[in-house]
Amino acid sequence: MKNFPIVKSRRLRSTPYTDRIEAQGVSSYTVYNHMLLPASFKSLEADYHHLKKFVQVWDVAAERQVEIKGKDSAKLVQLMTCRDLSKSKIGKCYYAPLIDQEGLLVNDPIINKLAEDRWWLSIADSDVIFFAKGLAAGHKFEVEIKEPNVNILAIQGPLSDDLMEKVFGEEIRKLKFFNFKYFDFKGKKYFIARSGWSKQSGFEVYVEDDSAGQDLYDYLFEYGKEFNVKAGCPNLIERIESALLSYGNDFDNRDNPFEANFDKFINLDTNVNYLGKEKLKKIKQEGIKRKLMGVKIDHNKIDMYCEKTLLDDNNNIVGFVRSATYSPTFKKVIGIAMINKPYWNSKHQFKIDIDEKIFLGTVCDLPFI
Amino acid sequence: MKNFPIVKSRRLRSTPYTDRIEAQGVSSYTVYNHMLLPASFKSLEADYHHLKKFVQVWDVAAERQVEIKGKDSAKLVQLMTCRDLSKSKIGKCYYAPLIDQEGLLVNDPIINKLAEDRWWLSIADSDVIFFAKGLAAGHKFEVEIKEPNVNILAIQGPLSDDLMEKVFGEEIRKLKFFNFKYFDFKGKKYFIARSGWSKQSGFEVYVEDDSAGQDLYDYLFEYGKEFNVKAGCPNLIERIESALLSYGNDFDNRDNPFEANFDKFINLDTNVNYLGKEKLKKIKQEGIKRKLMGVKIDHNKIDMYCEKTLLDDNNNIVGFVRSATYSPTFKKVIGIAMINKPYWNSKHQFKIDIDEKIFLGTVCDLPFI
Repeated sequence: MKNFPIVKSRRLRSTPYTDRIEAQGVSSYTVYNHMLLPASFKSLEADYHHLKKFVQVWDVAAERQVEIKGKDSAKLVQLMTCRDLSKSKIGKCYYAPLIDQEGLLVNDPIINKLAEDRWWLSIADSDVIFFAKGLAAGHKFEVEIKEPNVNILAIQGPLSDDLMEKVFGEEIRKLKFFNFKYFDFKGKKYFIARSGWSKQSGFEVYVEDDSAGQDLYDYLFEYGKEFNVKAGCPNLIERIESALLSYGNDFDNRDNPFEANFDKFINLDTNVNYLGKEKLKKIKQEGIKRKLMGVKIDHNKIDMYCEKTLLDDNNNIVGFVRSATYSPTFKKVIGIAMINKPYWNSKHQFKIDIDEKIFLGTVCDLPFI
Repeated sequence: MKNFPIVKSRRLRSTPYTDRIEAQGVSSYTVYNHMLLPASFKSLEADYHHLKKFVQVWDVAAERQVEIKGKDSAKLVQLMTCRDLSKSKIGKCYYAPLIDQEGLLVNDPIINKLAEDRWWLSIADSDVIFFAKGLAAGHKFEVEIKEPNVNILAIQGPLSDDLMEKVFGEEIRKLKFFNFKYFDFKGKKYFIARSGWSKQSGFEVYVEDDSAGQDLYDYLFEYGKEFNVKAGCPNLIERIESALLSYGNDFDNRDNPFEANFDKFINLDTNVNYLGKEKLKKIKQEGIKRKLMGVKIDHNKIDMYCEKTLLDDNNNIVGFVRSATYSPTFKKVIGIAMINKPYWNSKHQFKIDIDEKIFLGTVCDLPFI
């Protein structure tokens, strides 16, 4: 696949860390929420091995926040998600699929409950702010909705606890998964959650003050030398191996949350009111005809820029692979694919065309084992 | 400015023409509505000179459509825009700023009226579909909202009438600006509007059938040889010289439509109901304190990836330039800037830092003269 340069403009927003990640050697970008998101530094595979062994600092400012506050904020947030938030607690993060009236997926943010009447939706790549504004206007909710100036730094990797303890003190080790708290460093307060878009453990610092974030970025590299800290970013190999789904890649507004395996975040037997609830009940009753599964392909290379069709021996459609990469762990191409029901049995073999050659693969459960 | 490759993925959607534009020599991309949009072919300046003299075919599939149809579709479309559409006619295109409840800009689509109960909003770079879905759900409107599979080819440049006549017949010359009609070619029907994101005149073909679009693409190059047809794309130099505004670059959801000079598309004395109407009345009454204007800078080069600050002699803020480029016509850098009220007098000079050197410039009216 030929490389094409990305043309920068104000519309593809830079972050407070862009100068720093370019100095650190970022080697490619993607665009996410109208913002530059680094996609690789040394190489996808070198970054992957480093992430699994040491600690990395990620500029993930592109995970934008939608702030919803005011009297009706809890009602609006609940209206957007099929996850029952009625027992949600301040200081906790909730992974929550957002659903439209048709029962289709709009986004899969982490919802941070800052107060009973103040929420941050840390979003994937779609303009949730306009969905929220439309709903609020239509329902005449008393809410304020905005995108605050929050630019996340993620600290990810098995040595992330060590680095974060050195910067913020040992208290940070006690922070539980999907909880957040404010921590001090050099007289500044930082909102820190134990979360992040890898399964290598880590933290996300929701930076509200650009210069405090830039200082922290520099300190993390200064303090992190002994842990072999490097600049990194969400890593395609690691995230597919870990089966972390990506809105726009693995699922989108044409898919429902059952098809995307979000079952445990769908509460149908609840009194709370949310969009698409009746549709979801109907979908559940009728049963889905396709769902996201894993695939393993006997090849060492794949470039993805649209879905690729999977066929059986009779050229019937098995499904469509939506994200894929070579996995150094499985020594194969692995991917996430929307698989039609007759092929859910994980022993099915399929054919796939990669660069005009046919390769064989099998369907498997997620997460990969 | 260093070049960085863009990493392709399904999330940054390819178009039915991507293979063709890569064969034609696209040399850079931007991302627009989660889709690849070509940004240059030979070079920005070579493309510019060709566009002003001959005819180009553009892959602007990234101008996505939001289709709104059904009983309440006219009500929903009107609710989103401050332009009075009560006298709108089928077969016409309406440039219409979309506004939220705060009176802030959401997008600036061209609204195509296909039927009294069927509309296509041809959008700039924000997810209008979720704004529409939120409003429809909140208001319990009877509408269907979707993104249809429409992938626009634009034919732009002074020879576009000649090329289009050769393909679709002389009838197409009679198509008036911002009108659309269906035209036949080789047994297929094509929805064609006289419109496009340049001031060099031209057409946009709203292609609903991928393979018909690919055929048309190839025919346009075959038939266009005598007109020196080339592949092109929205051109930064041409669009700034022509003062065509870009959502996300020149204005965004923090700006109101008066600040963006949309006065002639704002109908306050109307009975139609739209979002933010009272806010806009208040803004008009109080008067705005900043607005988009032109700037000319005595230099031959500028890279933009965020706003740049303009200062007066006492280091007070004159405004912020949001888009800019070197103009071969004016032999200067020209740009579009949000200028504070005390500096609206077009004789004001300002200072600007470009690559750590100070240059001088002046504020001017739009369009540039």
